[in-house]
Amino acid sequence: MTRRQMTIVEVGPRDGFQSIAEVIPTSVKLDLVEKLYRAGLRRMEATAFVSPTAVPQMADAGEVLRHAQALPGLDVQVLVPNLRNAAKALDAGADHLAFVISVSEKHNLNNVRRTPAESIDDYRAIADLLPAGGRMRLNLATAFDCPWDGKMDLKKTLALLEPLVDIMPDAEICLCDTTGRVTPDHVTALFRAARDAFPAANRWAYHGHDTYGLGVANVVAAWEAGIDVIDASFAGLGGCPFAPGATGNVATEDVVWTFEQMGIGTGVDLPVLLQAAVAGTRLPGALIGGRVRDVLAPAAEASA
Amino acid sequence: MTRRQMTIVEVGPRDGFQSIAEVIPTSVKLDLVEKLYRAGLRRMEATAFVSPTAVPQMADAGEVLRHAQALPGLDVQVLVPNLRNAAKALDAGADHLAFVISVSEKHNLNNVRRTPAESIDDYRAIADLLPAGGRMRLNLATAFDCPWDGKMDLKKTLALLEPLVDIMPDAEICLCDTTGRVTPDHVTALFRAARDAFPAANRWAYHGHDTYGLGVANVVAAWEAGIDVIDASFAGLGGCPFAPGATGNVATEDVVWTFEQMGIGTGVDLPVLLQAAVAGTRLPGALIGGRVRDVLAPAAEASA
Repeated sequence: MTRRQMTIVEVGPRDGFQSIAEVIPTSVKLDLVEKLYRAGLRRMEATAFVSPTAVPQMADAGEVLRHAQALPGLDVQVLVPNLRNAAKALDAGADHLAFVISVSEKHNLNNVRRTPAESIDDYRAIADLLPAGGRMRLNLATAFDCPWDGKMDLKKTLALLEPLVDIMPDAEICLCDTTGRVTPDHVTALFRAARDAFPAANRWAYHGHDTYGLGVANVVAAWEAGIDVIDASFAGLGGCPFAPGATGNVATEDVVWTFEQMGIGTGVDLPVLLQAAVAGTRLPGALIGGRVRDVLAPAAEASA
Repeated sequence: MTRRQMTIVEVGPRDGFQSIAEVIPTSVKLDLVEKLYRAGLRRMEATAFVSPTAVPQMADAGEVLRHAQALPGLDVQVLVPNLRNAAKALDAGADHLAFVISVSEKHNLNNVRRTPAESIDDYRAIADLLPAGGRMRLNLATAFDCPWDGKMDLKKTLALLEPLVDIMPDAEICLCDTTGRVTPDHVTALFRAARDAFPAANRWAYHGHDTYGLGVANVVAAWEAGIDVIDASFAGLGGCPFAPGATGNVATEDVVWTFEQMGIGTGVDLPVLLQAAVAGTRLPGALIGGRVRDVLAPAAEASA
């Protein structure tokens, strides 16, 4: 079948949970991961291998990873900010890494305490470390806009991509709107330019926020630019600690609903997803977002 | 100058206020209309001439109209559901009527207690009544989707337009998403089809809701389809009493912010608008919406 399908990477268990200060019991995380899996999601950023001192919420990364990988057919990626933690993740059995690097030097320094050049070196070393069959997702933060530098010059984003694509042309490259300030025209323009500039890279993805209400609009723009892998977070959980007011990733349920309306499959069962999303809103300290849940969740709960 | 500008029709004082059960004092309405005007909005649906028994909120239509018309350069339109009230509005000095008719028979019966055929007859009679220089906005409700009938067949929408365009080709035709369920691809498709089908009609507009988070996405789609007049409501006030959960029109501040980011002018001063929007959220019983206010309004208040 040649018809395009939208693949959603559920990032709530990593990006969403990481924004919650209060540590969520591992059993609660595992239950939510299972709920999301039962809704039909088959790609998930389940956790991050990061310093447990800096991010206590992710101290149970190994256990979450093992549990998620036991779910049949689930492609589990884990975020790694540097070489040391990439090695840890691989030791723990990860086979799909998500490496993050920012186009903005200031954002990269704040996010992973490295210059972009240092992150490139780490990425090269991680590529060498990756075993056969291991997959790589490259998250390009502030690809469109930076909380400090503002709108990112397209040339600057492409310039950073150049060495990264050379290192690993078959990585999936995710252009990330970190602040939620990007508009659909900019999404279209950058994806077109990037794909033209790097024909060797053929796996692209989009990650965006709904802070300014443009979450779904930008996902649709990415789709129309030929991108069929997008990140989303159930209940709109998440945010960026360095982007004030950036209250959340685009909500998975908003994306699923929209694509259903457009007649495009996502493989997700919306009523089941809505139950997971409602559970997500009940996490203490959760920053939630999204729109369709308020309209549809009462019906979903009644029919549950 | 040939560069396209986006014209916003601020519908909060009509569509927004009408959704609030508690009657707003006329002085409060007039103050908000002035605030919106000071923000740079130069088109406004300021009130509705409807039965004061059915809609007590609009009982002060005459006074609001007079006040709004006194603001220099403000194009004031008033909603009229039928011939009788159109005559009243004209008697009260209105020079820009907004007539509403639904593609869905059931919605038209519920909304204006007439069949679409009866509404067409009224529209014809109103066109005859309109003095020289008078302007007409034709609001086509449920043009995309109906709370009862679901997705509207494009042909059905075009079929209703046919006699209406004949009656008054120079009316501004606003295709309205009444439920908020329309997606950007459908917005694009209907505007393209309608403009192809009715070359004599050359003034088009779009009205949409943000119930499912697609408010701004659909406005951007309309813009990209060549539409440069759109309805919006400050603070996202509004809704449709017959569309359960349809909590609000797209927020004016979200639209202004988005088009600013896209480098397209709206003539609106966003910080001043945000102050009006914050005042709108404080109306007792208001159903509010919109996203950018939460991020930007604290800054706007600090600088006020």
